[in-house]
Amino acid sequence: MERRTQVRGGWRGDMCNARFVGTELCAPSRGTLHPRATPVTSPFALLQEILVGKYGEGSKLIYELQDQGGELLALRYDLTVPFARYLAMNKITSMKRYHVAKVYRRDNPATTRGRYREFYQCDFDIAGQFDPMIPDAECLKIVHEILSDLQLGDFVIKVNDRRILDGMFAVCGVPDSKFRTICSSVDKLDKMPWEEVRSEMVGEKGLSPEAADRIGEYVQLHGGLDLIERLLQDPKLSQNKLAKEGLGDMKLLFEYLTLFGITGKISFDLSLARGLDYYTGVIFEAVLLQQDNEHGEEPVGVGSVAGGGRYDGLVGMFDPKGRKVPCVGVSIGIERIFSILEQRLEASEEKVRTTETQVLVASAQKKLLEERLKLISELWDAGIKAEMLYKKNPKLLNQLQYCEDTGIPLVAIVGEQELKDGVVKLRIVATREEVWPVAWWGWLCDPSAQLKPAPDPVVFPAASVTPQFLVPYRFLES
Amino acid sequence: MERRTQVRGGWRGDMCNARFVGTELCAPSRGTLHPRATPVTSPFALLQEILVGKYGEGSKLIYELQDQGGELLALRYDLTVPFARYLAMNKITSMKRYHVAKVYRRDNPATTRGRYREFYQCDFDIAGQFDPMIPDAECLKIVHEILSDLQLGDFVIKVNDRRILDGMFAVCGVPDSKFRTICSSVDKLDKMPWEEVRSEMVGEKGLSPEAADRIGEYVQLHGGLDLIERLLQDPKLSQNKLAKEGLGDMKLLFEYLTLFGITGKISFDLSLARGLDYYTGVIFEAVLLQQDNEHGEEPVGVGSVAGGGRYDGLVGMFDPKGRKVPCVGVSIGIERIFSILEQRLEASEEKVRTTETQVLVASAQKKLLEERLKLISELWDAGIKAEMLYKKNPKLLNQLQYCEDTGIPLVAIVGEQELKDGVVKLRIVATREEVWPVAWWGWLCDPSAQLKPAPDPVVFPAASVTPQFLVPYRFLES
Repeated sequence: MERRTQVRGGWRGDMCNARFVGTELCAPSRGTLHPRATPVTSPFALLQEILVGKYGEGSKLIYELQDQGGELLALRYDLTVPFARYLAMNKITSMKRYHVAKVYRRDNPATTRGRYREFYQCDFDIAGQFDPMIPDAECLKIVHEILSDLQLGDFVIKVNDRRILDGMFAVCGVPDSKFRTICSSVDKLDKMPWEEVRSEMVGEKGLSPEAADRIGEYVQLHGGLDLIERLLQDPKLSQNKLAKEGLGDMKLLFEYLTLFGITGKISFDLSLARGLDYYTGVIFEAVLLQQDNEHGEEPVGVGSVAGGGRYDGLVGMFDPKGRKVPCVGVSIGIERIFSILEQRLEASEEKVRTTETQVLVASAQKKLLEERLKLISELWDAGIKAEMLYKKNPKLLNQLQYCEDTGIPLVAIVGEQELKDGVVKLRIVATREEVWPVAWWGWLCDPSAQLKPAPDPVVFPAASVTPQFLVPYRFLES
Repeated sequence: MERRTQVRGGWRGDMCNARFVGTELCAPSRGTLHPRATPVTSPFALLQEILVGKYGEGSKLIYELQDQGGELLALRYDLTVPFARYLAMNKITSMKRYHVAKVYRRDNPATTRGRYREFYQCDFDIAGQFDPMIPDAECLKIVHEILSDLQLGDFVIKVNDRRILDGMFAVCGVPDSKFRTICSSVDKLDKMPWEEVRSEMVGEKGLSPEAADRIGEYVQLHGGLDLIERLLQDPKLSQNKLAKEGLGDMKLLFEYLTLFGITGKISFDLSLARGLDYYTGVIFEAVLLQQDNEHGEEPVGVGSVAGGGRYDGLVGMFDPKGRKVPCVGVSIGIERIFSILEQRLEASEEKVRTTETQVLVASAQKKLLEERLKLISELWDAGIKAEMLYKKNPKLLNQLQYCEDTGIPLVAIVGEQELKDGVVKLRIVATREEVWPVAWWGWLCDPSAQLKPAPDPVVFPAASVTPQFLVPYRFLES
């Protein structure tokens, strides 16, 4: 069996690996989010008009459903817009929610970097009119917690604010009408060098070279509270109302993050822009770092694994009366994270078991199918993870081979002599050691014994099999 | 906050209830399946041609994607066909797998009965050339186990075989060309009385009244091993090769199910037909029963919650050389099951908490935001499920009210006096009892104390709060 196959043109397609599928994939983040928020789902498809005009340059990647005589529908592009619509439709003005679900993008995928047309996102959002930056700080705390728990290595969470960006564009001489398009140029700085971004701004987007150069100076800046203080004194920025508001809130945010003890991983970074149209305040993005030891250089980013920000206007777009509900949220790129974990696992050549079977029920001679079926049924009922070959008369060697191929640690052998003795032979597959004949067969076969309380599930550790775990003591006692 | 809202036209839409979302929904069945099988996912959309001709009358419910300059795609209708394709594409001849995922149907939904356009299915399949009826018996054992574990009440698993049906049609005088269409008429017997089904057969489908009447006699029959034995002696059926094969395997199946101890819930039922085209052998369907106490009648079926069967020809349809891989599988209608559980819960008027927050961090006076942030951060880091209001200076009453509204059992109160005393007040929300001032504030605030091993997560039981659970002992000790 192949570990992964047939990822055709970027469909996350068929995948066969116990660690990276569906619910497993989401478990670590859910562990953090579930206690904190209400799960809210959304439909996989929405009216197309709901998705229009929310995603900037990403809009061209929206998947549309065929009109089969109903409404014009499109597949969910992210989990934020459906949530905003949900709040508006239900007139909910305050809520914390999380949602782990798939989103769909008609993208040119790069499967090796964990980009697919269909992928899981894991979102956490706080909606409601609250005092500034308290929910925003919690979002960052959560990202910090999840990334730390996953032990992905070093990371940094870049933080900026759309208001600071807009203020910066204004003082640099960018015309209002060009704010969004220049913003999406800035957004490319994590993938392109400044020179290319500059030439896009000047060449393609018609920005004056002077304005571009002024932007160039700002976007190099990154730091902490000290930088915020410095920019609050910046002769140009401090005169701009938006920038001043943004910087004031950024200062507050850093104060809260200091109380949370996580500023070590937070970087206020003026080059962070985020591509989506709907952000209105704080924006952030978590990036994994990799120490380039060979060249002794600074750690380099190896991809964004979470992002989010404040979107105070989105709910109002769905409300007939335009009533606003301020929101802040974060999206964890679960699939991206697991691509990284998966690559690491492959590099380590650790063998991954795809099932958790603890014991194979085998027979030593022919004509023992009935005994095998009876034994396995009792094991299943006792919560033991048992398997058998679907053959009437399998050879013992084939059964042992199956254990070795699939990593099943134990084999329970039914044989004629054992039946006479009222025992089942237990053998450790790896060492071929026979564990002393356990006197549980009698218990299993004696219907009157079934009246006793069912035994606890017996846990055979899959990885390190040691004899003391092998005896189902309850069986022995009876 | 509403518990569920906006299920627009049968989209499983927005739903806000902790018990019934995503992974939660699937946990019980996964618990049974995960140890036994490898999880295999499939793409949410497949080439349209893959889905054509597999689902009988259901085919009209397939959702197609808009042609946006790529391949003609359609959304996954079930999890069986994508699995068969997966096996064929990867030349896999033997596998046990499970898959929990959403499928999509362009249906007229009946949300009250748990029918949606988008819903979870939970499939278990065994592929490979094995000795007859051993994997089939395991599928039934699994359905039995899952339905028993879920404690849904009484149920029956109806079993039949497509070969017995086809043999029956043949001996009743149905022309070969009408087998499938008559079969889908029989399939309606769980929703319509025989008289209506008969008139569809005769009126719409042109079957002779005599043939229909002969079918009518057979489809009334249901029973166990005795009925199988009787039909094996049936002068007409026993002469039909297909029926004889089917009945022989059915006998074997019942023998295995007897060894598994589950025949009490299995009924060999000649009226069971299953609508899908791809079944070739055993078919089965689990139905929940409801005792109609008022009229003292027999238990009545309240809906199918699982179904499946053997599909030996499906993989071959996707293999360029037509190589067959025999398969048997079962699909658990998770969403249907949870509709039932949800209705029961609503009827019981039990209040459902949508979060698991154990303690609200509150303040008794103004200007204590910093202390609250510090405390909550420590609690989070210790794995305690804590929440706070996102206000700088919330009123104590509002904070207590929030606990009552959302069911948070405990409140940790930071106040000026407590700060001086180095304590935090813990109060049980339900009884308003104050738990003795716990001396942990010092520990939380003293940075040197953080060098001690982190405390175990302190579990405050959400439901039954008793004082002995309220003290984080590790804090006290320090």
